[in-house]
Amino acid sequence: MNKAPDYSCVYVTITTESGLKGYGITFSLGRGNNIICEAIELLKHLVIGQDLKEIFSDFSTFWRSITSEDQIRWLGPEKGVMHMAVAAITNAIWDLWARIEKKPLWKLLVDMDPEQLVNTIDFRHMSDALSREEAIEILKNMQSGKEQREKEMLQDGYPAYTTSCAWLGYSDDKIVRLCKEAMAQGFTRFKMKVGSDLEDDKRRAKILRQTMKPEMLLMVDANQKWEVQEAIDWMKELAEYNITWIEEPTSPDDVLGHATISKALQPLGIGVATGEMCQNRIMFKQFLMSGAMQYCQIDSCRVGGVSENVAIILMAKKFGVPVCPHAGGIGLCEYVQHLSLFDYIAVSGSLDKRMTEFTSHLHEHFVYPAQMKNGCYVVPQDPGYSIEMKESTMDAYVWPTGSVWQKLIQDGVYKLH
Amino acid sequence: MNKAPDYSCVYVTITTESGLKGYGITFSLGRGNNIICEAIELLKHLVIGQDLKEIFSDFSTFWRSITSEDQIRWLGPEKGVMHMAVAAITNAIWDLWARIEKKPLWKLLVDMDPEQLVNTIDFRHMSDALSREEAIEILKNMQSGKEQREKEMLQDGYPAYTTSCAWLGYSDDKIVRLCKEAMAQGFTRFKMKVGSDLEDDKRRAKILRQTMKPEMLLMVDANQKWEVQEAIDWMKELAEYNITWIEEPTSPDDVLGHATISKALQPLGIGVATGEMCQNRIMFKQFLMSGAMQYCQIDSCRVGGVSENVAIILMAKKFGVPVCPHAGGIGLCEYVQHLSLFDYIAVSGSLDKRMTEFTSHLHEHFVYPAQMKNGCYVVPQDPGYSIEMKESTMDAYVWPTGSVWQKLIQDGVYKLH
Repeated sequence: MNKAPDYSCVYVTITTESGLKGYGITFSLGRGNNIICEAIELLKHLVIGQDLKEIFSDFSTFWRSITSEDQIRWLGPEKGVMHMAVAAITNAIWDLWARIEKKPLWKLLVDMDPEQLVNTIDFRHMSDALSREEAIEILKNMQSGKEQREKEMLQDGYPAYTTSCAWLGYSDDKIVRLCKEAMAQGFTRFKMKVGSDLEDDKRRAKILRQTMKPEMLLMVDANQKWEVQEAIDWMKELAEYNITWIEEPTSPDDVLGHATISKALQPLGIGVATGEMCQNRIMFKQFLMSGAMQYCQIDSCRVGGVSENVAIILMAKKFGVPVCPHAGGIGLCEYVQHLSLFDYIAVSGSLDKRMTEFTSHLHEHFVYPAQMKNGCYVVPQDPGYSIEMKESTMDAYVWPTGSVWQKLIQDGVYKLH
Repeated sequence: MNKAPDYSCVYVTITTESGLKGYGITFSLGRGNNIICEAIELLKHLVIGQDLKEIFSDFSTFWRSITSEDQIRWLGPEKGVMHMAVAAITNAIWDLWARIEKKPLWKLLVDMDPEQLVNTIDFRHMSDALSREEAIEILKNMQSGKEQREKEMLQDGYPAYTTSCAWLGYSDDKIVRLCKEAMAQGFTRFKMKVGSDLEDDKRRAKILRQTMKPEMLLMVDANQKWEVQEAIDWMKELAEYNITWIEEPTSPDDVLGHATISKALQPLGIGVATGEMCQNRIMFKQFLMSGAMQYCQIDSCRVGGVSENVAIILMAKKFGVPVCPHAGGIGLCEYVQHLSLFDYIAVSGSLDKRMTEFTSHLHEHFVYPAQMKNGCYVVPQDPGYSIEMKESTMDAYVWPTGSVWQKLIQDGVYKLH
């Protein structure tokens, strides 16, 4: 589906009167990035000039004011381009919030009083799955042991898995080499792409299984390629390789289809994972309530930022589904490590069946890049949400003024409209 | 939800080398219209220079090329801003197709060979609900009687209902007067807005019921205001007014919520209607398969144009759900009359529980405006999809060059960025 991504992002900077800055991004695959920029232009009058103290004291009202502006809402509601724009804006505000409190974002969330944190959530159209009172109760019940879990995370980090070993079409030798390298780095969980050619999927799964230790985990990802029945049939063929999850077997909009696939694959021990293109809490609600996902792959940039992800993490807890965030792209690893830490320390209290995606590319652009140790995310300790980009990156890569673009434009590779 | 709509649209004109023109729109509530324009700018390279004969001979492949461009797809997929842009473009191509065949769009669809029409549909992610073969069979089974039904439509028109009699806050006198006027025009079906104040909803329902004849139909529309349980409770209070359907009781994304509401209201004889903000065939599929909608309100501009609506109409037939298109706004009445005519003549063959929305505003901008007679849509007979706008409208209202905008800009009411 995503044949030739050209990783790009919209980068939002919010500056306070006193000169503090917060940074937020939403991620895209290249073309269309400018559409999200236009969407942010459309929304920015709802943010500029607002009082930060008022936003922080009633975040859910602020959030609704930008997700449900009465004319703009028609373009969504709360989905696609418009919601990704909301994510970039609100993530920047959360970054600012954490910087003001001089805490990394995960720590800001973990330390918040349960009522205060729950007040950041807009419960509209999700209250049949989770009420405000239930959300507070979940957080209160997990207060005990928080310090111990925080200490544990600071020492061990949060478990990750790697997607980099077995892309479509990699040769046997390359797969063996990359898998061994990843194991040497401490990885014990691997994901490979499937869905283009069954025999090639079997070949790569076999090579991986022969290279990995038996207790290590193997997940597969179809990137929405299949129809419902096709997903079931294909995965039955791959079951012998002991697959932990099949990710995105079909359309991200198809709750009932995922429920059908989940039911069919449950006897084979294969779970269904999805979420990176799940548009909002209302879709996650249905996936969680109907047994349509066994692994909840939240994304930091597609739903409306931190508070909507907190809502989804709390629903996942209620329905007993482990949260395993989507990462990769650009900046997603930097972001989601905070959400996983919050989940473990303050909500789930468990690492069972939980792991966060990691890919090794593009970290060099960030002031506070995500770091790996023994196949785990090292806990970020700098204030904020870890998404601030380096000045050198901005100088080189901002479209169209960056030096790299200017060179490409001069060489005639790109044209300015 | 839609407090102060400022009806606007994106207007696409496609011109062939030989000078033929096709017109398409997508509708918006004002702010954000420019975002859809930008989305069309992004997609237009996939259309310009293409061979119309090739598009017509394999429309589903063309359609997929613009809905699933591998980088742009990340911004949807197939939803919100990007899909509305697809609608405007593909509707223009269907308008062109009908003009080339010198037929109104409904007649183009009705006269197409079943295989040819089904070839326009992209079945991806909907084949578990409807296969290509089933779609062809549905159309073949309805070939007999088509001429008779066409004759009937030409004589009687397609039944409509009006939304104009009982908006929130209308006084008793005004409701009585508007309802009587509508009845004098031949309307027998009425819809009123609900959800802000239960007592006011009861007042207006009572007045309408006292004014209408007992056998006439009353529908209500909540525009997504409620939570799931709230919708059930509220509608129980209104059941005594003999309500045919509750429209948009909650989030348009909430299939399972609508199913719960449907089940609870079924014993009261109240159906659930939704669709005007339903994003694509994959969501409609789930609403239809799960008993979550008893009235299927297709929209001509939100899903990806004519072929996706044909797919939804065929699924609705399979699952026995009547299609009652959303209209109003600007241009929607002009559009959806064609879809209803196609549905009756070639797919459903029934008028039972079927009616198309009508509002009386903004028809003056169209070269071939929708027309009413005895509360029914008069069958359009001019070639095309009825959406071409008058030159005088374009001269006055195109942003920002139109004379009306220029005046407002000169007067300082609007600013150009």
